[in-house]
Amino acid sequence: MKKHIRIIDLLENTKTLQEVNAKGWVRTFRNNQFIALNDGSTLNNIQCVVDFENTPEETLKRITTGAAISVIGTLVESQGAGQKVEIQVTKLEILGDSDAEKFPIQPKNKPSLDFLREHAHLRTRTNLFGAIMRVRSTLSFAVHKYFQEKGFVYVNTPIITGSDAEGAGEMFQVSALPFDNTPRTEDGKVNYKEDFFGKQTNLTVSGQLEAETYAMSLGQVYTFGPTFRAENSNTSRHLAEFWMIEPEVAFNDLAANMDLAEDFIQNVIKYTLEKCSEDLKFLENRLIEEEKSKPQAERSEMTLLEKLNFVLENNFKRVSYTEAIDILKNSKPNKNKKFQYLIDEWGADLQSEHERFLVEKHFKCPVILFDYPAKIKAFYMRLNDGTEPGKETVRAMDILFPGIGEIVGGSQREERLDVLIEKMKVLGIEEEELWWYLDTRRFGTAVHSGFGLGFERLVLFVTGMTNIRDVIPFPRTPDNAEF
Amino acid sequence: MKKHIRIIDLLENTKTLQEVNAKGWVRTFRNNQFIALNDGSTLNNIQCVVDFENTPEETLKRITTGAAISVIGTLVESQGAGQKVEIQVTKLEILGDSDAEKFPIQPKNKPSLDFLREHAHLRTRTNLFGAIMRVRSTLSFAVHKYFQEKGFVYVNTPIITGSDAEGAGEMFQVSALPFDNTPRTEDGKVNYKEDFFGKQTNLTVSGQLEAETYAMSLGQVYTFGPTFRAENSNTSRHLAEFWMIEPEVAFNDLAANMDLAEDFIQNVIKYTLEKCSEDLKFLENRLIEEEKSKPQAERSEMTLLEKLNFVLENNFKRVSYTEAIDILKNSKPNKNKKFQYLIDEWGADLQSEHERFLVEKHFKCPVILFDYPAKIKAFYMRLNDGTEPGKETVRAMDILFPGIGEIVGGSQREERLDVLIEKMKVLGIEEEELWWYLDTRRFGTAVHSGFGLGFERLVLFVTGMTNIRDVIPFPRTPDNAEF
Repeated sequence: MKKHIRIIDLLENTKTLQEVNAKGWVRTFRNNQFIALNDGSTLNNIQCVVDFENTPEETLKRITTGAAISVIGTLVESQGAGQKVEIQVTKLEILGDSDAEKFPIQPKNKPSLDFLREHAHLRTRTNLFGAIMRVRSTLSFAVHKYFQEKGFVYVNTPIITGSDAEGAGEMFQVSALPFDNTPRTEDGKVNYKEDFFGKQTNLTVSGQLEAETYAMSLGQVYTFGPTFRAENSNTSRHLAEFWMIEPEVAFNDLAANMDLAEDFIQNVIKYTLEKCSEDLKFLENRLIEEEKSKPQAERSEMTLLEKLNFVLENNFKRVSYTEAIDILKNSKPNKNKKFQYLIDEWGADLQSEHERFLVEKHFKCPVILFDYPAKIKAFYMRLNDGTEPGKETVRAMDILFPGIGEIVGGSQREERLDVLIEKMKVLGIEEEELWWYLDTRRFGTAVHSGFGLGFERLVLFVTGMTNIRDVIPFPRTPDNAEF
Repeated sequence: MKKHIRIIDLLENTKTLQEVNAKGWVRTFRNNQFIALNDGSTLNNIQCVVDFENTPEETLKRITTGAAISVIGTLVESQGAGQKVEIQVTKLEILGDSDAEKFPIQPKNKPSLDFLREHAHLRTRTNLFGAIMRVRSTLSFAVHKYFQEKGFVYVNTPIITGSDAEGAGEMFQVSALPFDNTPRTEDGKVNYKEDFFGKQTNLTVSGQLEAETYAMSLGQVYTFGPTFRAENSNTSRHLAEFWMIEPEVAFNDLAANMDLAEDFIQNVIKYTLEKCSEDLKFLENRLIEEEKSKPQAERSEMTLLEKLNFVLENNFKRVSYTEAIDILKNSKPNKNKKFQYLIDEWGADLQSEHERFLVEKHFKCPVILFDYPAKIKAFYMRLNDGTEPGKETVRAMDILFPGIGEIVGGSQREERLDVLIEKMKVLGIEEEELWWYLDTRRFGTAVHSGFGLGFERLVLFVTGMTNIRDVIPFPRTPDNAEF
């Protein structure tokens, strides 16, 4: 028998009247005659027309939503609207049944996103999750393609790490030691020397420090891998396990870092718009339908595709932290005490409500905030020269997106050994802990910069979904590690 | 000032007599005049000729191995051999010093691989590790490119997993619970309900089971992510943390699975040969040099490039387990009792010595072994129909490579719900544990297949390196989680 052809290829096929074989899962079966068959290669189904008079009743009954079937037949021009070709079935085989009473994903029931999340192993049998996951995959490839074509080296920084310089409180511990009869030292502490790695280890929260060592030898590098936070945040924007992209570039200053981030985001969105036009159109229509139930005032000003094109066609607005504070201080919601956290002085950390005001109300475009107060940012960020005592700033930048908030956080790195050590001292980070990181400043240090982009937040933005658990295959959140 | 140009681009530049800026790290400085400058963009250095008579003695002294510098000068045709262009330096700036007494990577000392492993954060400043990591990065991209162009969907399967159906003994535990005053249930057991995920969780050993659920909806999928083994194997072939590629394809049988694996490996090697010719030539020469110190009989019959081209140009030999056992039983090392584990009957698990004999001595090409005894393989592999009781085989396949051993392990999956449940029962795997996996067989099951390829083993093969710790940036092995 001939090899089956994927539905995406069949639908593009103009050579009709040939015999073809298609395999996939039944989406619907109408009038004992029309099967909508999907194999995941595309959003679109191929219509398979069954000769029901010459098909045993037994077989017809088994053509249920979710069943896997193989059809052989003639590819013909379709009589119906919405498709160019269909298959006139001559032979139909049930590969795997799907009990109509038990299969949980019944299109007519309109399963909720919550329900589908509990069936994450089956939710890609819906158009919505098929589209999301194809877009996610294409975006991933766009990331690699962008950096590889620019000559960046992909670096797999370690997942298990013995260094806890960053955010130790939010780290998951990795261990091969038992909770019962845990080996102890003489003074009763856990004896990590007996653990697998001979020391206490955690899941990484960022590959940046390791990536910096590679940037200081290979020049331009990027990571793209899983990172972890043991943070008890049960929100629609947080995951305990998520994928992060972290480019790091030797000799780039903060301005070049912003240029890179902006160009990168625009390019990966552009590529995905080209490759996933049908899936994105579907996602756009879904949002339009969803908005119909909202009052006019709450509806988006732009459709999904308009929003994506807007990001491609407009420069991100670059605004210093100091300017942003001025804008926020004088803003209506601040004066009318509508902000939960009122902005009264320079130095305040910006909350999500402030970021959204700047992006969605004030500038109405993606915004890059830069030159943040040193006190609210990480130790490795480059201290600006010549700032007033008490008003020190660092060369940090955050990119804020409408509906998403912070999508990128980056900085020029502190390249001066003495300044870096001094800062670590103040924060109580041991030099011995980061001897290897400091080596990059000891031997041939140079200006360098990088940023981190939470991949799922980008997928949220591009798909127009609102809950981050819907854009990663098997989300990990507090109390949830199913599958 | 003009933006600096990467050295890979400068070396390709034929527009001489223009003013250029290069930045990088000093590899060597000869005769107070010739700087070999490298920025990681290529194996090759650019020669920067310093006008030493007009350069302060102070500056000349600071041009040491490892120092970061910026040079501005005129790009001219090179007088020396081995390079087309060089820079006549007009301005030189030391960006970051490198104390010649302290910088550990001194080319003249020929640092050993062991020494470099202890300095994993600096080892990419050598030609060898620059080449390895550029090849690794290119191979990674080749993997994504291959699958994406074939319409596979990239799936990020979870790293933290609550399912321990496979190899539980070898898993790292992930927890946010403390070892001191661990919460306990009434009967004194650890109360995992109080842990972050409300259950016991581990680091994944494979994304296969989750990938299968996606293949049974999206058709063709692949994973490429980190996997973990808490196995106390201190060998040159094992890592506790490594990257794995796992394609999974609906409607593929074992033969199609072998076709895919073979085509995939040949394609990614081909792409890398094209993109990394200089780095691979360097790695080949390194091996040739290394072999000179070996007795003639132990030297390889092929150079690195010959070996890679051999894999491209020759089909992998497909041999059933039963045939392989016959060959091994009658082989010289078996008859002369040279094997550590003698092969005396059907059913024996093959050891690395047997695999190497088959690949390196008997067939002298990559070998795909298939149809293994059911007893020595995993529960999810498709049981062959019509085999004798006691001699049941499964549709498993392993690909064996010269010098590497097993590089791929795969199978057609057991698609029959009843057979799968029966096998799980025998092995004591709870149905409730894998309810979601079984759902793929309950609702629209179909023949499907997939395989896993340990990425670092592929990098070993392509680079000709022999220790797996040298082909991953920061290796994790027993007692080692530095950096």
